Amino acid sequence: MALIVQKFGGSSVANAERVMNVANIVTDTYKKGNDVIVIVSAQGDTTDELIAKAKEINPNPSKREMDVLISSGEQVSIALLAMAIEKLGYPVVSLLGWQAGFNTNSTYGSARIKKIHTERMHNELGRKNIVIVAGFQGICKYDDITTLGRGGSDSSAVAIAAAMHADRCQIFTDVEGVYTADPRKISNAKKLDEITYDEMLELATLGAQVLNNRSVEIAKKYNVELEVLSSLTKAPGTIVKEAAKMEKMFIRGVTKDSNVARISIVGLPDVPGIAFKIFSKLAAKKINVDIILQSVGRDGTKDIAFTVSKDNAGETVALFEGTDVPKGAKLECDTDVAKISVVGAGMESHPGTAATMFEALYNEDINIQMIATSEIKISVLINKDDADKAVAAVHAAFFPEE
Amino acid sequence: MALIVQKFGGSSVANAERVMNVANIVTDTYKKGNDVIVIVSAQGDTTDELIAKAKEINPNPSKREMDVLISSGEQVSIALLAMAIEKLGYPVVSLLGWQAGFNTNSTYGSARIKKIHTERMHNELGRKNIVIVAGFQGICKYDDITTLGRGGSDSSAVAIAAAMHADRCQIFTDVEGVYTADPRKISNAKKLDEITYDEMLELATLGAQVLNNRSVEIAKKYNVELEVLSSLTKAPGTIVKEAAKMEKMFIRGVTKDSNVARISIVGLPDVPGIAFKIFSKLAAKKINVDIILQSVGRDGTKDIAFTVSKDNAGETVALFEGTDVPKGAKLECDTDVAKISVVGAGMESHPGTAATMFEALYNEDINIQMIATSEIKISVLINKDDADKAVAAVHAAFFPEE
Repeated sequence: MALIVQKFGGSSVANAERVMNVANIVTDTYKKGNDVIVIVSAQGDTTDELIAKAKEINPNPSKREMDVLISSGEQVSIALLAMAIEKLGYPVVSLLGWQAGFNTNSTYGSARIKKIHTERMHNELGRKNIVIVAGFQGICKYDDITTLGRGGSDSSAVAIAAAMHADRCQIFTDVEGVYTADPRKISNAKKLDEITYDEMLELATLGAQVLNNRSVEIAKKYNVELEVLSSLTKAPGTIVKEAAKMEKMFIRGVTKDSNVARISIVGLPDVPGIAFKIFSKLAAKKINVDIILQSVGRDGTKDIAFTVSKDNAGETVALFEGTDVPKGAKLECDTDVAKISVVGAGMESHPGTAATMFEALYNEDINIQMIATSEIKISVLINKDDADKAVAAVHAAFFPEE
Repeated sequence: MALIVQKFGGSSVANAERVMNVANIVTDTYKKGNDVIVIVSAQGDTTDELIAKAKEINPNPSKREMDVLISSGEQVSIALLAMAIEKLGYPVVSLLGWQAGFNTNSTYGSARIKKIHTERMHNELGRKNIVIVAGFQGICKYDDITTLGRGGSDSSAVAIAAAMHADRCQIFTDVEGVYTADPRKISNAKKLDEITYDEMLELATLGAQVLNNRSVEIAKKYNVELEVLSSLTKAPGTIVKEAAKMEKMFIRGVTKDSNVARISIVGLPDVPGIAFKIFSKLAAKKINVDIILQSVGRDGTKDIAFTVSKDNAGETVALFEGTDVPKGAKLECDTDVAKISVVGAGMESHPGTAATMFEALYNEDINIQMIATSEIKISVLINKDDADKAVAAVHAAFFPEE
């Protein structure tokens, strides 16, 4: 007997039929003698519909009231799933975030998990109940409802798995696992059996939308074994776990991220403190920076280029316009770019990886604008029109047709 | 400065425009220097839609999970109303039942109010916030969400008004107040300026749908001054208060209740304990009985007739079929009946009231099947086809055209 945490996203519970499908998966797990805790998101487009309702009344509602509003979506789905499980004849109880002891800070709209008081969940499991918990939501010290922000239900599931010392946390989605490339685009993309937390983090960050990256960070920190799998097929998914437990593999996958903009600041004075001034401005606005390149100084000036998400491009430009930092420098913003990355923990012991990637791009006549590397990742920034061609070429170089 | 509790039903907040209308009423009251607590129901048909969603998955869900589901409706409306008030530039906070300290027993689906812990509401008023509270819902000792049953938002409002020692509790509806008869049917029906709790209770019980009767009972018990008024017009409504504070008036109104069935059990043995056996069976099923008539015993047998609501008729008949109580007796159920009542606290000092009512019915050739009287009410059971004619005739007898 094990304790299994299962998380189902909004599309998995979008209508009555899918709710029954989820109820079947959950009770199949329970029937095998496992304790089961289930985390669910709001049904289908509920959250977007609630936001639209709010905006019709007030385009700028407070985040506190927005959290009260949108947390009602998960309330509906936990109750419906509990009713479906009742229909199948199994004991079940649904819990809202505050009932499940899900304590967060009071940053409404994007709250951070502080502590999970597990007493109620333990009591309900002790009564042999299947426990359904509303994802995405918690309670802060003011006894107010908070939400974790988009993708928060994954974090809820992993945090609950960690706090309850669950044996496994299964994240059910509409794909069968993690692939070496987007299977809708690359026909011979392969499903991975296993992947490390760090590799998964890179993939999440790079826009492979399978798992929210905060949830992977929590899983890594508390060593929660994750499984990404489909709620529609019965196939085993991809296990995300510690590197030490993993067979070595060269490259895990090739990803594309189009939500990226390149900002270049050209002609900066080559004096100390310039980088600090630029990036502290960005940090103050909580704008995440990805790749950073600084040219070698020449003629008393240097250039700094970096990437931000496309959503932040306008704000980033506005931040520097009309200010005296950078004095005398010229700012350029290019949103017609995409980031292509290869990810794999085995990479560091294979010096040929970068060369293989660059050769594949060269063969397709694709120009590389920026390069960034880490121990488990090589990323290049290219023109976005070349992105799909680039993924296909790089994937073919690492995963040749059998 | 006063503390005003205002309650708005589902139709008053059914869409964005109506939510803004309510926000205007609330802030008008706040602007005059009053503290304001607002209780809202779920928008329009939300509750029915949620119930339909549940039934699609499970025709017999547990009441606990049903309460989790339907309480989400008020959660949406409190957040939207708070956002509308934010838009108008006033400080506001929305509270769910459990946040407002609304403690009930654990009879899911029709919970009784136990205690209201007013600390949070007092704190929010102290911060000069307009306080919006979700009606219809509370929390029980197991930290579960409960609902009060249909019409529960009225009870929420009155109970909060009582606990907070509010100066007035205003119940906003789609009618302008309490009338001497249904104004859609009787053209010269008059709006009452005032009415006593007891009279209002009789009217509520008799199917004049203006106020939920539990709410009137609470108002009477804690002496909360109620006002029933329209959220669409600015006209003053009807005040419900203590008899001692009231000018005397003869008859308050004439009502019709069609949701009634007459059950007759004919030929019962005329021995002690028969009535107890019958009505304890009904009590065990929580079926409310209204009028009870027992015939004088004759030939060793007697007859008992009583009325129940039409919804309970089938269950009541089933309760006696195939059992040995009543032994040898014959049960009849008639759902083609309606109850017509005149209500008024002045009635006891006017012995002619019954005679006037019966004469009006006689003049219209309407047969009376049962009669029941109390200090402030005379009710008759008649054929339902005669009901509208009966109301018109009785109303005309007590409220002649001027």
